Amino acid sequence: MLLIRIIEVFALFWHLFCSLIDHFGFFENGTFKQRYLVADQHWHQAGGPILFYTGNEGDITWFCNNTGFMWQVAEELGAMLVFAEHRYYGDSMPFGPDSYSDSKHLNYLSSEQALADFAVLIRELKGSWPGARSSAVIAVGGSYGGMLAAWLRMKYPSAVVGALAASAPIWQFPGMVPCGDFHRIVSQDFASSGPNCDVNIRRSWGAIDKIASTAEGLAWLSGTFSLCAPLKSRPDSVAFKEWLQETWVNLAMVDYPYEASFLQPLPAWPVQAVCRHLGFDSSVSDYQLLQGVSEAARVYYNHTGATACLNTSSTATGSLGFLGWYYQACTEMVMPLCTDGVQDMFEPQAWDFQAFSDECQALFGVRPRASWAETLYGGKDLSAHSNIIFSNGGLDPWSGGGVTRNISDSVVAIVIPQGAHHLDLRYDNERDPPAVRGARALEVDYFKAWVRQARRAP
Amino acid sequence: MLLIRIIEVFALFWHLFCSLIDHFGFFENGTFKQRYLVADQHWHQAGGPILFYTGNEGDITWFCNNTGFMWQVAEELGAMLVFAEHRYYGDSMPFGPDSYSDSKHLNYLSSEQALADFAVLIRELKGSWPGARSSAVIAVGGSYGGMLAAWLRMKYPSAVVGALAASAPIWQFPGMVPCGDFHRIVSQDFASSGPNCDVNIRRSWGAIDKIASTAEGLAWLSGTFSLCAPLKSRPDSVAFKEWLQETWVNLAMVDYPYEASFLQPLPAWPVQAVCRHLGFDSSVSDYQLLQGVSEAARVYYNHTGATACLNTSSTATGSLGFLGWYYQACTEMVMPLCTDGVQDMFEPQAWDFQAFSDECQALFGVRPRASWAETLYGGKDLSAHSNIIFSNGGLDPWSGGGVTRNISDSVVAIVIPQGAHHLDLRYDNERDPPAVRGARALEVDYFKAWVRQARRAP
Repeated sequence: MLLIRIIEVFALFWHLFCSLIDHFGFFENGTFKQRYLVADQHWHQAGGPILFYTGNEGDITWFCNNTGFMWQVAEELGAMLVFAEHRYYGDSMPFGPDSYSDSKHLNYLSSEQALADFAVLIRELKGSWPGARSSAVIAVGGSYGGMLAAWLRMKYPSAVVGALAASAPIWQFPGMVPCGDFHRIVSQDFASSGPNCDVNIRRSWGAIDKIASTAEGLAWLSGTFSLCAPLKSRPDSVAFKEWLQETWVNLAMVDYPYEASFLQPLPAWPVQAVCRHLGFDSSVSDYQLLQGVSEAARVYYNHTGATACLNTSSTATGSLGFLGWYYQACTEMVMPLCTDGVQDMFEPQAWDFQAFSDECQALFGVRPRASWAETLYGGKDLSAHSNIIFSNGGLDPWSGGGVTRNISDSVVAIVIPQGAHHLDLRYDNERDPPAVRGARALEVDYFKAWVRQARRAP
Repeated sequence: MLLIRIIEVFALFWHLFCSLIDHFGFFENGTFKQRYLVADQHWHQAGGPILFYTGNEGDITWFCNNTGFMWQVAEELGAMLVFAEHRYYGDSMPFGPDSYSDSKHLNYLSSEQALADFAVLIRELKGSWPGARSSAVIAVGGSYGGMLAAWLRMKYPSAVVGALAASAPIWQFPGMVPCGDFHRIVSQDFASSGPNCDVNIRRSWGAIDKIASTAEGLAWLSGTFSLCAPLKSRPDSVAFKEWLQETWVNLAMVDYPYEASFLQPLPAWPVQAVCRHLGFDSSVSDYQLLQGVSEAARVYYNHTGATACLNTSSTATGSLGFLGWYYQACTEMVMPLCTDGVQDMFEPQAWDFQAFSDECQALFGVRPRASWAETLYGGKDLSAHSNIIFSNGGLDPWSGGGVTRNISDSVVAIVIPQGAHHLDLRYDNERDPPAVRGARALEVDYFKAWVRQARRAP
């Protein structure tokens, strides 16, 4: 497989297109260079289909490398692959180094602008790429990129004949699903990956509080977890708990059945590997428990064995644009999450929109619009749309906000019980559960049907 | 009928809602008061349907008064009527008196912002109006308002269950229909409304040029046409010809079978009335011909007999917002029109995008984006949409850019051969051609089917 990937990387070409900074107004008439990647080695036929990855919140090369599915089906479909970078991420900065400087420069970071970029790029590709004029374009994306793929089909159906929205939580907006579902699914993953695993994580929060209440305890925690920046105070220990919580959440997202390096380099079934350190019964002391938690954390942060110390300021790859995503969450992508400590293994925390809004105001000078995403994208009413596959992983906390039942004959859901976050978009692997093989085959069948349908159209 | 209208006007209530100036960015976080009208005297049932007029480029009360169809079907449907004013028109000014001051203030005048206003208003109405939560909303609009009705269904299908787009030229954008169709249809109307009518109008342009070449000729023209501002120069005579051309175009648009006052107070079949003054054979002199043209122009400008002089600076009611519409044409609503003097009765004039763009730059400081409307609204590919009626008048020049054939079972076209601009949206009249009665009945049948379909939905 490595050989195949190297060959493919050689056949991948980088392009830039000149994109409008503001598609929806004419006062700001500037443009910027937006990046996209094209691989056309299997596109041997004029009019062949185009699989178009709707880039999400990160460097497009990273998504390109983590979407092996597209590479693997390109030959069978005779498809050109295009990976389009999302504005304000990777190299696609509307105002260069000033893009994140203030809310004025961040003003054009939105899903609507991104969709317009994609629609315009598709038009330009079809107009300029020899043989592409009548090509059927299929949108593919995972996570937020999957939301964009679905929305591209919903908002610009003449641009794409269909969409594969993998692990796309398009219903994770206010009022659509219970805010606790997300962390409940995380906790279920841990509960089913080892005895007492969720119980011990739930217990760990109080243990941290107790130990962190003294200076010696803080030093012990810092040493036991090999923290790069030792904990000095009570607020430090709160941040430490948040970092651990995010670590468990990330692990649930990337609980793949084989060694992989998505958010971090990880062993196969990493949640099971974590839980092997958390099988204590209730007789264990707080110190023993937290010793186990520290081993568990190292599964995530030090699988390679090369990590000198654990850095609590980050939980995942630098290829993701966290600040940009936080701005998007602070504006239109408002996704309520909460915990209750009963149906999940975390400390209870209600969803507090006002506090969130105040934080956004302090950080970016903007306030989120809680109901805009529902108005804009139609909320739970998808009945007017067609040709969208929503694939979901049963292990993936984002499946809580995903579409997990068929809406109609052509807006369909696939659930992969043993799947984590968009497992179906990854290269196949001998350790893949059968359900993901079936999902990929079904997805390709839909792609072919959409292409046939487009050819038949007048 | 007058009595009915007075009663209805009494049952009409004005409302304002607080609308965001910018739906697509968060830097400009201001709001403005947007106007809408509600009539609910026939809305006797909770969950009854709502007919929602998507206001276009003018004062909403004017559209309200010229959309009798909605008033007449409200009782049969048990429907609430809502007429929503388009931003930057009528009383709905985002920046009050400064709204038109420069391109910075005009920046939020666009169809996308208007659609977002409507979608948000529908959400708010359904959330706040007692009994409206489960109401099916149907968009209705004529002309640009019809385009908005169709686009509202296309872009926000969860907001409206269907749309009646009357005389909506959604294909009048670059590359979609021949630019000459519009004036060809105008000319056909004149050709079929009296012998030699189109021939004599075609001849009139040269006659004006000849006579306007001398000071005496200019004075004669000014006197014969009773112009408020006498022609002084060659450029004046060019503007005079443009004014006449626009007059004939407007007449084709409002060629209704009964006395009406839409753009101007007019007699029944006004184009026939005009052509009664233009039946000359080829032996007539230029002076006699233009004497006839002046009588013809008075049909349009002085039906009431109260007009002291003809004002060449305006051709229609002050209820329309010409400047706003010109800005929209100069940005996204780019509609190529041309004449060739052969298939139409006008002087040949090619479509010159660059000249148009330069004019826009000079006037507003913006340049039009020729292909954006096609990308945004899908061009001629409407196959993914549903529940839209495109009604067209065979006499209406805008039918050239309209959808005049069925796209699918639920995106359907109606053509009313003897119909002018959105005749079907007007109050019924004993002089209505049978085709418009049939069209209205069919439209109501579709409305009922959409409401039933919405009730059946999960």
